[in-house]
Amino acid sequence: MKNDFVIVLAPDSFKESMTAKEVCEAMERGIQKANPAITCIHVPMADGGEGTMQSLVDATGGTIHTMKVKGPFGNEVEAFYGISGDGETGVLEMASASGIHLVSPESRNPLVATTYGTGELIKACLDHGVRNLLIGIGGSATNDGGAGVVQALGGKLLDSEGIELPFGGGQLGRLASIDLTHFDPRLQDIMVEVACDVTNPLCGPKGASHVFGPQKGATPEMIEQLDDNLRNYANVIKRQMNRDIVDVPGAGAAGGLGGGLMVFLNGVLKKGIDMVIDYTGLEEKVQQADMVWTGEGGMDFQTQYGKTPLGVAIVAKKYNKPVVALAGRIGDQIEVLYDKGIDCIFGIMPGAATIEEALANGQENVERTSENVTRLMLSLNGLKQPVITEAGERTK
Amino acid sequence: MKNDFVIVLAPDSFKESMTAKEVCEAMERGIQKANPAITCIHVPMADGGEGTMQSLVDATGGTIHTMKVKGPFGNEVEAFYGISGDGETGVLEMASASGIHLVSPESRNPLVATTYGTGELIKACLDHGVRNLLIGIGGSATNDGGAGVVQALGGKLLDSEGIELPFGGGQLGRLASIDLTHFDPRLQDIMVEVACDVTNPLCGPKGASHVFGPQKGATPEMIEQLDDNLRNYANVIKRQMNRDIVDVPGAGAAGGLGGGLMVFLNGVLKKGIDMVIDYTGLEEKVQQADMVWTGEGGMDFQTQYGKTPLGVAIVAKKYNKPVVALAGRIGDQIEVLYDKGIDCIFGIMPGAATIEEALANGQENVERTSENVTRLMLSLNGLKQPVITEAGERTK
Repeated sequence: MKNDFVIVLAPDSFKESMTAKEVCEAMERGIQKANPAITCIHVPMADGGEGTMQSLVDATGGTIHTMKVKGPFGNEVEAFYGISGDGETGVLEMASASGIHLVSPESRNPLVATTYGTGELIKACLDHGVRNLLIGIGGSATNDGGAGVVQALGGKLLDSEGIELPFGGGQLGRLASIDLTHFDPRLQDIMVEVACDVTNPLCGPKGASHVFGPQKGATPEMIEQLDDNLRNYANVIKRQMNRDIVDVPGAGAAGGLGGGLMVFLNGVLKKGIDMVIDYTGLEEKVQQADMVWTGEGGMDFQTQYGKTPLGVAIVAKKYNKPVVALAGRIGDQIEVLYDKGIDCIFGIMPGAATIEEALANGQENVERTSENVTRLMLSLNGLKQPVITEAGERTK
Repeated sequence: MKNDFVIVLAPDSFKESMTAKEVCEAMERGIQKANPAITCIHVPMADGGEGTMQSLVDATGGTIHTMKVKGPFGNEVEAFYGISGDGETGVLEMASASGIHLVSPESRNPLVATTYGTGELIKACLDHGVRNLLIGIGGSATNDGGAGVVQALGGKLLDSEGIELPFGGGQLGRLASIDLTHFDPRLQDIMVEVACDVTNPLCGPKGASHVFGPQKGATPEMIEQLDDNLRNYANVIKRQMNRDIVDVPGAGAAGGLGGGLMVFLNGVLKKGIDMVIDYTGLEEKVQQADMVWTGEGGMDFQTQYGKTPLGVAIVAKKYNKPVVALAGRIGDQIEVLYDKGIDCIFGIMPGAATIEEALANGQENVERTSENVTRLMLSLNGLKQPVITEAGERTK
């Protein structure tokens, strides 16, 4: 009898321990130890945050490229972008070039920080001939509305005397016009998706400067200045391009980069997990599977807010597939996830251990746990249907 | 539709964290959170070692009693015995009165250590009117062949001049006769079972003194003397009672207490786990159940050697029931347990943690893991039978 039992493996990475691809591989090793006839489909996932580029590249057998770009303060940093296996899609995370993790806390300064390096990564993708760009924009050090990206791609930000502005959100108050004459023409033909989980507008009390400025080192005075500057930037854009991004949800993401990508790259903002789900074709794979496994390094009640395991579960439940999740750390209130589609969550730790040990032994722990989850399923074969309540309905 | 799905919960204690009864209760809480219609039958287990008295008392709704007895060196110690809920059975662990944990390493001395206190515990059980005695004999500090037990129960160990011997295996070389005139007559009507997992004979190179003497503080010279003395003790027994215990498997357990209980109390030696299985009626309960859960604080390849989870699994597999095990610490080579009947083993830890945290949070960790194992089972309802290999057979 042919075994056609199929499990889709769609975990996120286990941060600092395993990439999503490595989690898939460890899951499959465990499952196949229990029963080598089960088919595993690997869909390394991400939620638009850190690890997204790696997972999307892994999902397509693509390649990761390293290059030197201008960091948030114009200093040289080493950044990364990915090209999908079919060469059609470039994937990048703005944090790789313009992220706050590149800046020590005491030197943070959103007045001068620029997204220029992110623009350089985009340009490098264009040089590969891609037709799509997937851009993750979490973790920025910047508040420049994506002005640096525009500059890196050939746009000129000019003051009222036609002189080019230096880098940084602190300069945008003097912006009078944007010269797109030499803006990279290849961008006309590119589909751009931006992973963005926040809905903040560009300006105002819920805007980029007020909400995210403080964590980037902005003082109250700087926040007012940055907010005014972004408003001027938006006014120039409106005047020249007839698009008003001041109040658009998500325009305030990543110091206004969300808004900038909308207007200059025709970027479509999506929730990160949805972008990854679409791009990986998860839904089609889930339809053809018997069950779905997911997981993440840490899971708790916050997992419901746009994290991979919940996004995967929502797709799985559309087709009524059981959902198993594995986690290295199970935090508070995981029970909220049960009602949202995650049927069960198993910790992978074999006992008391330091965090260092936990991170170092992730793969063997995922493998062992996967083997035992599969073994439990095997052992239930032939059992009577156990779990009908007196009312004749399954208990949630 | 009536739900009659029944799970037998038969864990050992999680040492230093939970009694077996507490593990049962935590398992049931988790299971019933997932589906309150599942019936749980609690069978708190033990393997004859530490925790056996507690589990057997808990299994019958019995009581535990504290009393002061003579410790290994005649000093007063507080010891325990249990009386089953029906009052028919006394349960005790020799280590409680005569255990090596009562003695600091530097003061260990099997020449003088006595099992007298164990005899006092037996006498106390008789005073309760019990008809059965279950005795665990692991962890002794003694090498007296159970001579102290005989003395506590009214027997007299006499030298050739008819003078009573002092305590300790070091005296038995001078034993000439045993006067049982005043030996407690109630013992005639009592069934005695002794939990014993070793098969060492009383004397010789594999005997009590040679094998277990060193860990009780015996020097090579002391070992020779102790071995000779036990042989003399056995000779007196043979002459008086026509029973030869020198080479009987198990007679060498607990410094010869195994042999002493055989001849003076007509004790039957059983593997500890088998004694507990018999006494708790586990087999009958398993027959009526749909699946069996077990577990222990730590599980590894040594679990196959007479530990509770394996004993429970062997009973369960007689009736082809799925066996789930939970463990606080999963050690090396647990895969050897799969072939012996344990279908799957789940760790209960939610993440990296110290041993202290692991011990303190045992109940919530068992509860959460139990809930999720049950939720996995629920989620599989209605799935096609997934796990047929191409050969048409379940993979082990």
